[in-house]
Amino acid sequence: MLDGSLRDWRERADAALARALPSPDHEPRLLHMAMRHAVLLGGKRMRPLLVHASGALFEVAPSVLDGPATAVELIHAYSLVHDDLPAMDDDELRRGQPTVHVAFDEATAILAGDALQSLAFAVLADTDSDDRTRVALLRTLAEAAGVAGMCGGQALDIDATGSGARLDLAALERVHALKTGALIRAAVRMGALCGNADPASLEALDRYARALGLAFQVRDDILDVESDSQTLGKTVGKDAAQDKSTFPALIGLDASRARLDELAQAMNQALEPFGERAHALRALGRMAIERDR
Amino acid sequence: MLDGSLRDWRERADAALARALPSPDHEPRLLHMAMRHAVLLGGKRMRPLLVHASGALFEVAPSVLDGPATAVELIHAYSLVHDDLPAMDDDELRRGQPTVHVAFDEATAILAGDALQSLAFAVLADTDSDDRTRVALLRTLAEAAGVAGMCGGQALDIDATGSGARLDLAALERVHALKTGALIRAAVRMGALCGNADPASLEALDRYARALGLAFQVRDDILDVESDSQTLGKTVGKDAAQDKSTFPALIGLDASRARLDELAQAMNQALEPFGERAHALRALGRMAIERDR
Repeated sequence: MLDGSLRDWRERADAALARALPSPDHEPRLLHMAMRHAVLLGGKRMRPLLVHASGALFEVAPSVLDGPATAVELIHAYSLVHDDLPAMDDDELRRGQPTVHVAFDEATAILAGDALQSLAFAVLADTDSDDRTRVALLRTLAEAAGVAGMCGGQALDIDATGSGARLDLAALERVHALKTGALIRAAVRMGALCGNADPASLEALDRYARALGLAFQVRDDILDVESDSQTLGKTVGKDAAQDKSTFPALIGLDASRARLDELAQAMNQALEPFGERAHALRALGRMAIERDR
Repeated sequence: MLDGSLRDWRERADAALARALPSPDHEPRLLHMAMRHAVLLGGKRMRPLLVHASGALFEVAPSVLDGPATAVELIHAYSLVHDDLPAMDDDELRRGQPTVHVAFDEATAILAGDALQSLAFAVLADTDSDDRTRVALLRTLAEAAGVAGMCGGQALDIDATGSGARLDLAALERVHALKTGALIRAAVRMGALCGNADPASLEALDRYARALGLAFQVRDDILDVESDSQTLGKTVGKDAAQDKSTFPALIGLDASRARLDELAQAMNQALEPFGERAHALRALGRMAIERDR
């Protein structure tokens, strides 16, 4: 399914993550094992692939991109561990495996998430680049992870779910723009920052990343309605059971699929200035829209 | 109780924290309020004071030190929020106030802690210094917060408490060296890094900070035995109730007090090369040892 360079980058991302994570042979072993469980047992590696695909546009060496690719995936992994906790979404299955608090315990899951976030920033400090770029990466990732990004989106999502009120479409898109979109945009931006991209390129790539992030979430919502647990690797029908606002619930399946088509067009338009060089970013856009898990 | 410069730095640290935290008037309001509750309702600001006192040794402008002082306190605050959670220490009182999961709810407390950690690193990126220093600060704080520091120490502590086995003195000191010591050492180091301190100074300051961190914890354990909830602002006698390993439980109160005297001497020796310029660091060492809350 992955074309050549995507497959290479994925292997590279897995290897870099395995290297960055602390050894299960060293104390505190349980914490280290929980961190590795959270990161290494699967995942599409969409965010590391975006870092590599974006950096490749500017001919950045893959070894330079290992730092931000690893860091953004560690942030993503920590957010899943915490989102799955009993006090949050209370999920027992993730990527076809028991979630961290099920495989270990709740205290270890909280702590593993915390340590994964710290590790993400430690990895950025050692990115194989100059200090100016490292600071730009730090600012991008820290802002995307925090209140103006992922954590803020998760808080808005909890508020909406808890209040029982249905969000309207604009509000739903705003939640996703923060909760999942911010980190996807950061991934694309970090790759470009490593290549000293000009402001116009950063702006075009950001339009691509916004559309991709939203497409990813629309597809997620459609899969939650259509798929079965075995294919998806996590509990399905959960959104409806929790009465969560989703695109199919708000606008129906057909309109959700039409929205995906619009987003695909928006991605293609944003990538037009880069011509053939953007083929990997285009392939990742298609994957987000066509994936069945 | 605080001498002049310590009082000024404390006010400065409070003001910088209030500025860095997101406004309670903006969405997601509950998350922002929980973050402010966690940080602004008290605390000795020991770590920001250490940043300022250490930086002052090298005549660093206080405005440069605001970044690392704020960042290290945000990391400390997030760790308290998560440590207090029901799955961890299950504490309802902190600094005389309801803990974040009691004042808000558990999901908000988890998320507020996560967002405080992200914010700490975002603040470092904007430290009023050069990029080389910012990266050195990032590396120092991220390593101190993670598996080789605070999170690792907390995991060792959970393992020890859960197993019911009493730690020996060396193991107890190792837990504290990571759980609280790492962040205190990072605070002292970050102040010095802002002043481009030479390796010998960094090494001497690290000896001071190691002794201070341990003294702080020995005093904490003594206070848990001796004090009452009202003075201390948190539940007392909790260590014994949870059968936690503490210095008084392992070596008795008298030997614990003698250990404090040794640590005071170690601090003074480490600071000797700095002469009178280290008066603020000496005052902070005395505070750690003599405090009654």
